[in-house]
Amino acid sequence: MKIARVSGTVVSTINHPLFDHQRLLMCDYLDEKGGATGDYTIAVDLVGAGAGEDVLILDEGNSARQTLDVDTGPIRAVVVGIIDYWEQD
Amino acid sequence: MKIARVSGTVVSTINHPLFDHQRLLMCDYLDEKGGATGDYTIAVDLVGAGAGEDVLILDEGNSARQTLDVDTGPIRAVVVGIIDYWEQD
Amino acid sequence: MKIARVSGTVVSTINHPLFDHQRLLMCDYLDEKGGATGDYTIAVDLVGAGAGEDVLILDEGNSARQTLDVDTGPIRAVVVGIIDYWEQD
Amino acid sequence: MKIARVSGTVVSTINHPLFDHQRLLMCDYLDEKGGATGDYTIAVDLVGAGAGEDVLILDEGNSARQTLDVDTGPIRAVVVGIIDYWEQD
Amino acid sequence: MKIARVSGTVVSTINHPLFDHQRLLMCDYLDEKGGATGDYTIAVDLVGAGAGEDVLILDEGNSARQTLDVDTGPIRAVVVGIIDYWEQD
Repeated sequence: MKIARVSGTVVSTINHPLFDHQRLLMCDYLDEKGGATGDYTIAVDLVGAGAGEDVLILDEGNSARQTLDVDTGPIRAVVVGIIDYWEQD
Repeated sequence: MKIARVSGTVVSTINHPLFDHQRLLMCDYLDEKGGATGDYTIAVDLVGAGAGEDVLILDEGNSARQTLDVDTGPIRAVVVGIIDYWEQD
Repeated sequence: MKIARVSGTVVSTINHPLFDHQRLLMCDYLDEKGGATGDYTIAVDLVGAGAGEDVLILDEGNSARQTLDVDTGPIRAVVVGIIDYWEQD
Repeated sequence: MKIARVSGTVVSTINHPLFDHQRLLMCDYLDEKGGATGDYTIAVDLVGAGAGEDVLILDEGNSARQTLDVDTGPIRAVVVGIIDYWEQD
Repeated sequence: MKIARVSGTVVSTINHPLFDHQRLLMCDYLDEKGGATGDYTIAVDLVGAGAGEDVLILDEGNSARQTLDVDTGPIRAVVVGIIDYWEQD
């Protein structure tokens, strides 16, 4: 998993029913210090994350389907958690 | 998923029946600001996208097969939606 | 999928029967303009491609197995088509 | 697999029961000489690794689920071993 | 698949029985000319490769399990063959 910060939303006409009533979040990947990496992903929001929040991104198709409790469906990246904090030792 | 802009088409002799009557689109990956990244993919068009349109690319084999309603087939990247707009918060 | 140009062949002692009588092609990935990217892959040839030809590379394990009509087998990248032409709009 | 050094922990509100009582470790990927690469991953700890220890990271969803003895679950990267030593020949 | 040169071995305490009596090889990925790329992987040795030998690396979980004749197991990268030679045309 990677840490990312929610930076916006995407509105797209997708016909697959899996995407009905799902929010698509644009998420900026962060490095370990919380700085921007320049890379991003568009992920399905499972936790009600808002802009500016730091989240955990899981980017693997089978995992994504299982978090949505579906066997099939065109999905790969999901926001699985809001990060409370992280610490470097 | 990633955002990309359709830049052209590819014509290739592929014998697998899954590709019959499918359009192969050359798609330039964009960054969050809509700028070119220099990376691209060749994706099967599921939504009738045309050159210059911004689209959502899903790049995972199982997802791609499920959007085509096939259990098997040599496919990995598909255009799953035309983007209406996206906004950075 | 990506575009690549066949640049050579690889001869290796592999014991898995899936590789019997299969040619392994060294393929240089190209950018959209047809220039070299510096990256390559070694792919199983399904279409009889020769050195210097531009081909479509599909790099996903399940897809590769399905193009060979096998359920299992240690394979990931395959040459699925010879490109007739591509055009940027 | 890759070599990484455990650098910290992440605390996040994740609702999936698979994550109950699991520690999430922030792991810095190392190069072959033991130097930092600048890349990291957040992995589930299976071996009780502590900060500063060098570990083996396995980053593939099906493998991760199998090491946890679950058929399904949103997981991709796991710490599968603590490295005793490695040597370059 | 990619070409790599075996550069060393890794000794790690891994509890999964799949790893019993398996050698873990540190393998440096090579470019097409045989030069170092700076990237590496730790792979399970299936062919008895030794330090300095050029090998074929297959890096995909399902393929790796199939080469070991197991349905499940935490494994992703394997050395599937020793390269006799390769030629650029």
